[in-house]
Amino acid sequence: MTSVALVSACLDKIEAENDQLKAWQFVDRDAALARAAEMDKRRDHGKPLGRLHGIPVGIKDIIDTKDMPTGLGSAVLKDRSASADAAVIERLLEEGAVILGKTVTTPFAFLDAAETRHPINPAHSPGGSSSGSAAAVAAGHVPIAIGSQTNGSTIRPASYCGTYAMKPTSGLISRRGVLQTSQTLDQVGIFAATLEDLALVSDCLGSYDPADQASLAAPRPHCAQDMADAPPVEPNFVWLNMPYFDRLAADAREGLMELVDALGGQVEQIDAEHSFKGLVEAHKIIQDYEIARNLDWVLRDHGDAISEKLKATLEHGQTISDEAYGEALGFRTDSITYFETFYRDFDAILAPSAPGEAPQFGSTGDPIFSTIWTLCGLPCVTLPLLVSETGLPIGAQLIGGREEDGRLLRTARWMQEHLSQMTENEGD
Amino acid sequence: MTSVALVSACLDKIEAENDQLKAWQFVDRDAALARAAEMDKRRDHGKPLGRLHGIPVGIKDIIDTKDMPTGLGSAVLKDRSASADAAVIERLLEEGAVILGKTVTTPFAFLDAAETRHPINPAHSPGGSSSGSAAAVAAGHVPIAIGSQTNGSTIRPASYCGTYAMKPTSGLISRRGVLQTSQTLDQVGIFAATLEDLALVSDCLGSYDPADQASLAAPRPHCAQDMADAPPVEPNFVWLNMPYFDRLAADAREGLMELVDALGGQVEQIDAEHSFKGLVEAHKIIQDYEIARNLDWVLRDHGDAISEKLKATLEHGQTISDEAYGEALGFRTDSITYFETFYRDFDAILAPSAPGEAPQFGSTGDPIFSTIWTLCGLPCVTLPLLVSETGLPIGAQLIGGREEDGRLLRTARWMQEHLSQMTENEGD
Repeated sequence: MTSVALVSACLDKIEAENDQLKAWQFVDRDAALARAAEMDKRRDHGKPLGRLHGIPVGIKDIIDTKDMPTGLGSAVLKDRSASADAAVIERLLEEGAVILGKTVTTPFAFLDAAETRHPINPAHSPGGSSSGSAAAVAAGHVPIAIGSQTNGSTIRPASYCGTYAMKPTSGLISRRGVLQTSQTLDQVGIFAATLEDLALVSDCLGSYDPADQASLAAPRPHCAQDMADAPPVEPNFVWLNMPYFDRLAADAREGLMELVDALGGQVEQIDAEHSFKGLVEAHKIIQDYEIARNLDWVLRDHGDAISEKLKATLEHGQTISDEAYGEALGFRTDSITYFETFYRDFDAILAPSAPGEAPQFGSTGDPIFSTIWTLCGLPCVTLPLLVSETGLPIGAQLIGGREEDGRLLRTARWMQEHLSQMTENEGD
Repeated sequence: MTSVALVSACLDKIEAENDQLKAWQFVDRDAALARAAEMDKRRDHGKPLGRLHGIPVGIKDIIDTKDMPTGLGSAVLKDRSASADAAVIERLLEEGAVILGKTVTTPFAFLDAAETRHPINPAHSPGGSSSGSAAAVAAGHVPIAIGSQTNGSTIRPASYCGTYAMKPTSGLISRRGVLQTSQTLDQVGIFAATLEDLALVSDCLGSYDPADQASLAAPRPHCAQDMADAPPVEPNFVWLNMPYFDRLAADAREGLMELVDALGGQVEQIDAEHSFKGLVEAHKIIQDYEIARNLDWVLRDHGDAISEKLKATLEHGQTISDEAYGEALGFRTDSITYFETFYRDFDAILAPSAPGEAPQFGSTGDPIFSTIWTLCGLPCVTLPLLVSETGLPIGAQLIGGREEDGRLLRTARWMQEHLSQMTENEGD
């Protein structure tokens, strides 16, 4: 199959469905087909091919692209032009990917809903803030899309839309050229149709880049390679009973408990430390403090064009004291240290990806089930394993140790295969 | 073996020999050992390891390092401090390498000799301008060193010192943070103890970086992978009789002709196009025009501290007209096009790496046998296969097609194995 054929098919599907789905903010058909033809030519001429050779990709519209507008989800900035590609775009180009266009994001990647519809039931929301990336992959418009997560903006919409997604360890993927809302919390996320694709894209995007102050000057995980091997022993999971589990819907809880049962002796259930509740508060202080400073220009220049909710957050953030912020940062550091030894006993935490099925259109849903993992920069993956009472997808989340993204994906694959084998056996 | 043990051994050897060899401009023992210990700790903790995990590397002193001075080979600038690491340093850190220090370069990577001695016979020169990188690898101070080539500054000193070296296709490795003398001609080079190491390092350093205007926004070769396979058929070589072959020493010519004979029917001897002579002139026009503009600050601020030869070149370069420069650039573009189809018939050009054995101390030797390949950005590799009448090393060079660095290294490995098998058979 040629890249031109694959890209054309994706473009046709987008053209047919985007008026309804509104997953795409901007698509450059001609540029995508030209790039696909160039990739096909490289193959014909025996030139080196990348790991994403000829594969179409969608990009969340808070990620800078020099050849396409990057509107940050804001109506007033929709023609905004970035002077340079983001680091992740450089990596995608180096790997031979074909960038089809920009996917819809909530305004400034904040909580206000975007116009994107749920790919299965348009009365529902795809979640946010990476609304378009999640919907585009779930709808089969592209096999891969890039998003971001500052609280639950990758894992949550993937759970709602029924696709796979991953947020790698913080510091592995450079955020240069991604709208900065929180230098401490912002992280790049990946949506894909399979776990294998998540591993591949994660490997491709990881790169040391001192332009991102959090970028690790150290070797990256080898996710694809790690995933190719079977785990040395059957992995151990932990189910942490969290203080905010009252926000989990009954059907989601039931489904997750069935997973826990199915994994049997491989799962240990323990109560989370009491301090975990404080982590959610620490996340909020850091996010509000930093977004208020990073987006002060939005309040100043476009104060009339933003939602009351965003405006209130930006104004509130300005009132947070440096002391309260410093204390929250210290709490985060302690938690990162806590999790450093946690994964000696467990391969992954099994947890909800979201509170339940996708909410009604107009909401982006509750990010609470991602907050702590995002705060600590732990790698997370969501698998579309469950179904709600109304037939919508619900994800199951696995969380691994820092820089152990490969081990996390290997564990996720093992779990998926183990569960599917059990289902087959039941069918016998 | 731990990285600390390997790095310590290298540092001890450097300490014992550098007063005589003068291959190192700056070595940071403590920082290198701390980094090595950090890499050992990563391994102990099961963290991801890079492809150059714990391996000591030397860096030509025109390549910026933020934690060490980058003196550009100039006495007046020896304490120069760069604010950021060069792109190649970022890539080395990401792969787990340990940077031991900076290797001596000729002043501003120009033709004037540096103080480095030849590693076998101190009455001779190691060549230039990557004098210290070549000598350090040849003397066994480090398994890998990074250099650069604008004319013959990697291949020639490697040939003189008796080590392997490679200059990958132009545009594969970013030159951000490398002293710019010629934006058209400057290229990063690699010295290593084996062909396999050249492939590995080349793979590690290759990365798209729009900060380098020549950087290719396309997939990189997979040299290590390509080299692991045997060639699909026995490779074809070509020996081009060049208009400037009168500058080749008798013993070098004799040795190379023995190689041609040993390869038998695999080598076709043809006369180079008459236009090749003009390419050498085009290279000179481009280099002089560009260096005069890039180093105008050196002439202005340090005119008294540079050699008469460099001064004359900088002054001459200013007099080259834009028309002559444009014509030379056009000639270069035509030649790149010429070589695009050339490699349909041949896997590699077999050619001299240098005019013969290392010259006497005080000269850096004649770069003529690299000029055309550097001009066209073709990948080149030199193998230490020959010996001069006085017992000094002489390299044999192979030149491949653009972006076919993997095929070139595979061909080089085949040639080396083929020749060594023939020698063994002779010994029977």
